[in-house]
Amino acid sequence: MADAAPPYYWDYLALDEVLGAQRPLHGAHDEHLFIVVHQAFELWFRQILAELDQVLAALAGDDLPDREIGRVVAGLERVVTIQRVLHDQLEVLETMTPLDFLDFRDALIPASGVQSVQFRLIEHRLGLDPRTRLKVKGASYRAVLRADHAALLEDAERAPSLFDHVERWLARTPFLHFGDFDFWSSYRAAVERMLAADRATIAAHPTLDDEARRQQLAQLEHTARGFAALLGDGPYDRRLSRPALLAALLISLYRDEPALQLPFRLLQRLLDVDEGFATWRWRHALLAHRMIGGKIGTGGTAGHEYLEAAARRHRVFADLFDLPTFFLPRSALPALPAEVKSQMGFRYGGPAGTPQEWPRTGWGR
Amino acid sequence: MADAAPPYYWDYLALDEVLGAQRPLHGAHDEHLFIVVHQAFELWFRQILAELDQVLAALAGDDLPDREIGRVVAGLERVVTIQRVLHDQLEVLETMTPLDFLDFRDALIPASGVQSVQFRLIEHRLGLDPRTRLKVKGASYRAVLRADHAALLEDAERAPSLFDHVERWLARTPFLHFGDFDFWSSYRAAVERMLAADRATIAAHPTLDDEARRQQLAQLEHTARGFAALLGDGPYDRRLSRPALLAALLISLYRDEPALQLPFRLLQRLLDVDEGFATWRWRHALLAHRMIGGKIGTGGTAGHEYLEAAARRHRVFADLFDLPTFFLPRSALPALPAEVKSQMGFRYGGPAGTPQEWPRTGWGR
Amino acid sequence: MADAAPPYYWDYLALDEVLGAQRPLHGAHDEHLFIVVHQAFELWFRQILAELDQVLAALAGDDLPDREIGRVVAGLERVVTIQRVLHDQLEVLETMTPLDFLDFRDALIPASGVQSVQFRLIEHRLGLDPRTRLKVKGASYRAVLRADHAALLEDAERAPSLFDHVERWLARTPFLHFGDFDFWSSYRAAVERMLAADRATIAAHPTLDDEARRQQLAQLEHTARGFAALLGDGPYDRRLSRPALLAALLISLYRDEPALQLPFRLLQRLLDVDEGFATWRWRHALLAHRMIGGKIGTGGTAGHEYLEAAARRHRVFADLFDLPTFFLPRSALPALPAEVKSQMGFRYGGPAGTPQEWPRTGWGR
Amino acid sequence: MADAAPPYYWDYLALDEVLGAQRPLHGAHDEHLFIVVHQAFELWFRQILAELDQVLAALAGDDLPDREIGRVVAGLERVVTIQRVLHDQLEVLETMTPLDFLDFRDALIPASGVQSVQFRLIEHRLGLDPRTRLKVKGASYRAVLRADHAALLEDAERAPSLFDHVERWLARTPFLHFGDFDFWSSYRAAVERMLAADRATIAAHPTLDDEARRQQLAQLEHTARGFAALLGDGPYDRRLSRPALLAALLISLYRDEPALQLPFRLLQRLLDVDEGFATWRWRHALLAHRMIGGKIGTGGTAGHEYLEAAARRHRVFADLFDLPTFFLPRSALPALPAEVKSQMGFRYGGPAGTPQEWPRTGWGR
Repeated sequence: MADAAPPYYWDYLALDEVLGAQRPLHGAHDEHLFIVVHQAFELWFRQILAELDQVLAALAGDDLPDREIGRVVAGLERVVTIQRVLHDQLEVLETMTPLDFLDFRDALIPASGVQSVQFRLIEHRLGLDPRTRLKVKGASYRAVLRADHAALLEDAERAPSLFDHVERWLARTPFLHFGDFDFWSSYRAAVERMLAADRATIAAHPTLDDEARRQQLAQLEHTARGFAALLGDGPYDRRLSRPALLAALLISLYRDEPALQLPFRLLQRLLDVDEGFATWRWRHALLAHRMIGGKIGTGGTAGHEYLEAAARRHRVFADLFDLPTFFLPRSALPALPAEVKSQMGFRYGGPAGTPQEWPRTGWGR
Repeated sequence: MADAAPPYYWDYLALDEVLGAQRPLHGAHDEHLFIVVHQAFELWFRQILAELDQVLAALAGDDLPDREIGRVVAGLERVVTIQRVLHDQLEVLETMTPLDFLDFRDALIPASGVQSVQFRLIEHRLGLDPRTRLKVKGASYRAVLRADHAALLEDAERAPSLFDHVERWLARTPFLHFGDFDFWSSYRAAVERMLAADRATIAAHPTLDDEARRQQLAQLEHTARGFAALLGDGPYDRRLSRPALLAALLISLYRDEPALQLPFRLLQRLLDVDEGFATWRWRHALLAHRMIGGKIGTGGTAGHEYLEAAARRHRVFADLFDLPTFFLPRSALPALPAEVKSQMGFRYGGPAGTPQEWPRTGWGR
Repeated sequence: MADAAPPYYWDYLALDEVLGAQRPLHGAHDEHLFIVVHQAFELWFRQILAELDQVLAALAGDDLPDREIGRVVAGLERVVTIQRVLHDQLEVLETMTPLDFLDFRDALIPASGVQSVQFRLIEHRLGLDPRTRLKVKGASYRAVLRADHAALLEDAERAPSLFDHVERWLARTPFLHFGDFDFWSSYRAAVERMLAADRATIAAHPTLDDEARRQQLAQLEHTARGFAALLGDGPYDRRLSRPALLAALLISLYRDEPALQLPFRLLQRLLDVDEGFATWRWRHALLAHRMIGGKIGTGGTAGHEYLEAAARRHRVFADLFDLPTFFLPRSALPALPAEVKSQMGFRYGGPAGTPQEWPRTGWGR
Repeated sequence: MADAAPPYYWDYLALDEVLGAQRPLHGAHDEHLFIVVHQAFELWFRQILAELDQVLAALAGDDLPDREIGRVVAGLERVVTIQRVLHDQLEVLETMTPLDFLDFRDALIPASGVQSVQFRLIEHRLGLDPRTRLKVKGASYRAVLRADHAALLEDAERAPSLFDHVERWLARTPFLHFGDFDFWSSYRAAVERMLAADRATIAAHPTLDDEARRQQLAQLEHTARGFAALLGDGPYDRRLSRPALLAALLISLYRDEPALQLPFRLLQRLLDVDEGFATWRWRHALLAHRMIGGKIGTGGTAGHEYLEAAARRHRVFADLFDLPTFFLPRSALPALPAEVKSQMGFRYGGPAGTPQEWPRTGWGR
């Protein structure tokens, strides 16, 4: 190492390349901004991919040590923090006025953000459902890409995604079965009690007229069918598998148990990430409307309407958003038996292998 | 005044009242958050109304001195800054989990954000088109309100709105006619040159097949009809009147002239305000999805789907968003005659009444 | 309950009181903003106090179950999210210009933000060191308050703070002693190896002249004294007790162990909260400079200079910020014995009391 | 152009270069983040420089047409919007923990952010006073740079800065003299009336004891000396020249006149930019404290203490922050004569050269 020059900030960051990569086609002042903001987007997409790759690697095995969960959560938290930057970058782009954009817009055709390979990779890594994906000008989103990029994305589409890994991780949770304790029959009983009470309330309610009573009962039966589907008593047609949804439900309901605290945070961060991209797409759609009005996009899409449709449809974890549909009030939740709680806690302070009595675990004296 | 006690921070802010106004119905820890965040929303709605009232008062007269435009712009800028706070407050609300919300949610029924009188007032002050407004449970949005609040909103609905005032202000701009210079015939000629050139390009393009050529020509004729409507040569069916749209177009295209700099900023801030509320509604919809899943709202609406529909439909200044549809590239814009430019500048430095030659006005030596 | 009126949004939020509490002394348009923004600050201070109270209650006992740690972390995360709102509210206040402030500023004297009882309570709850607290006009910060408020703060000053509770919680961590494994002698040995290697490097370095070598060695001995103080081999003069600092160090270094993941997050959030208030004070100081220039504050303080000094000095968890001073690179860290790691994990899947072998715990098949 | 390939998103943005420029020295996962976030900083620094260059070019001439002011303001507004992104990027960097940083930190020595050539260029373009600039390790900040970079900065240091241009632009404002109207003697008289009234109030105040009276009078004489310096009646020792400060004062006080609306916004944006960098430095200092504790920086500086000192001292437009010191309440301001106001308005609607009577100018019917 004696010969190596000491690191220098400029060279370490390869700034000759990064700061030499702005090559406008037209040369208007704002084209420089346009290039820089998109390069910054792509730098951050690259970082998001690096985080997702690490998250996927951690989740990939069949045996995920708990110590990895903290890293997975930290990786997703970082993605959420990066998304804030992505949102603010749209505000920078919005300082460009439509008239200034028009100076160089025609020179870009047919280049377009729909050609962002990395953004498509992110969608694949997250696990966007190919069936809900919008077409681009009536064809596959890959048709607008160079052949090597299209091929790369076709491969990526087949690789297991965050959605897939999370589904498998959830489905193999050790908490769906607890020795002799049959959680789900307790849960089913609690649901039935709740529905019966609701039916009685509606039937006896003094201020409801017949029409309102009929409507509320119809609504209640809709809810009942949802529970039936979840519990295996009726047809189930969600993307996320039933065992995975049950596990997510259990984690959400008993999130205070030590062993579930990090898994619960993992689920929350998945919602955050989905929300972050949905809002980014939404704001991008508003920006496009404001920038080009009713014109079509440089890539030939339907402009802001395409982006708005993507904001609504390109959601990955919608099933997790739906989860609260199946929540029972805390007071109606089945209590976990002591031995189950014990398994979900730590045992400190004694020699290894000598479990402490619960709840004398923890940070006690 | 000799007897008055000196002002004291706590009393000046009436904190006995403000900090004594949290009265939970259930008492769960997070209900306190729920109340505080909604009270903070309402405080900010009140401030937004105060700003809009001042803006409306400034715009109301037939003779708006230029010195007022700066205040109007500053008022709208403040609203935009407040909207950032509104966005962030949603993130605070999102720290409440669905399970925690469930603890006290039933106690709130049928109270609901759809009963926010001030938010409806803001919609009226801005000028939300009653024809696009969503119904609440199949009826008027006023049906869920107390009689005095419903009456107050009915009055507010009839009062002139920001949309109305902006429309009238735009329509009476002194710049639609410039003495002998007929701007709009110059503009029409420039549009026709552009459309003709585009037609020729499509007709002669070597790589287009017949189908593509047909499609592009159809698209071009669609654009041509849009211009025709704008210029009075075809049916016009926008909410914003044609003269107002023309004035907004002119301001946007010649925004660098001193007299148009602030009017241009005024238009930009209208877009910002519309965008800010659209994004607030969008994020509110995502929050509702995450918080209650597929359940109906406490007020009986269709929950997150109602909010998402409002985000898409409750836009006030959509016609201004569409404006870039009619932009010509700067190089194709008709040049303003010198005497027109002179009228749009200042004349300093000489005795009053002795106009300087343009461009020897301004901050010169 | 049959007689109770159904909840109504306006009444539930006590909006008659909240929206009736703006009582300007002067009446300038911007005084309304000034009042609203400060009322919103106080509403959020109240919520922060509610969160801190819950956090303190959870931490108060001698036996803190691990299941409480998740709630403590969630409470602090909420405070951090609220701080974002506080930052943005300063930007709203900054839309008021100095000239507009001057319209009503004199009417407020001597009322001032230094009289915010709730902000002082937050400082006490967090555990601001009374010895570092700035005086207000040469006297106690309580001298500017009404007698009942001063008394309330005097009591609050004596109550145990977050700093106190965190210190005790850290000091009683079960991880400072691990049965037969003497962590700290391993750590001390690793430190000594590192320091010896550094000394050798400096001594043998070919490009250092005598002066540079002398300086680097002096710096190294400074570092060595820091380690000695930490490890009990030298005088220790931090506010945070030595055992607490050691525990925080251990948690930070082995944060991936399941039992330490949430405690590590707790430490991170303490830093975030401290940082959030430091930045709020800093921005408040800039705002004050811009708003009143070199004038004194309405409360008689030295204006923006007082606020800037507070930003620098009113830090609560500075000792935790200093922690990385004592970090060893991961490669030099003593490895935890298997039985220690086992105690820091969960054991699922078997009957309670039948520990699984580590690492076959966790989310495995 | 027939041969040119149509633009493609990936190539247009030179993504082979930008996304191929991450070359870690160590390879830890978080080093990728560290590189990306700094590359993103440098991309944005480049854009800020592009904006400042355009702003400087517009301000450089002796004859700045009013139509340029709008562009200057828009350029500064863009910088402010970019600063938001810079702030958020610090939060991304903060998701890296000190332990993770330690994995690769030693490999970077002596590379350091103090070697950021572009950030130094920004400081020069803004006009950081060389006399207030902190030394780096006891020497010039240029000593840590490669020779070509040091030379480039030495040149940049000598070029006229934004501070210089703003100063000259202010000093040549046409509003310091208004024909026969002697604004400054009116202003001086108003100041004297105000000071005399204050002296009388203090002398006659019933509740002041002798000591308090003495203190308040001393404070008042300090204020009086400040006014004397401003008005040329006493020694003046600010960096910003007296005529420039007077012009800034006048613009701030009469900002509602049409001709001053944009100049006023220009002054506000200068404050915003200064504030944005001050807060970025401050948060950077907190981040450094948290990341390395009491260690020295990789570049050999005093770590977070260096950054905190820079946050306090590296302010460019502090004199403009001080401006409100000299504000009079609006009620005490000298009124502008009608002919002066007329010159500050527009004259529309008549033939060029036929001034309209004020205030029948503007957006009237």
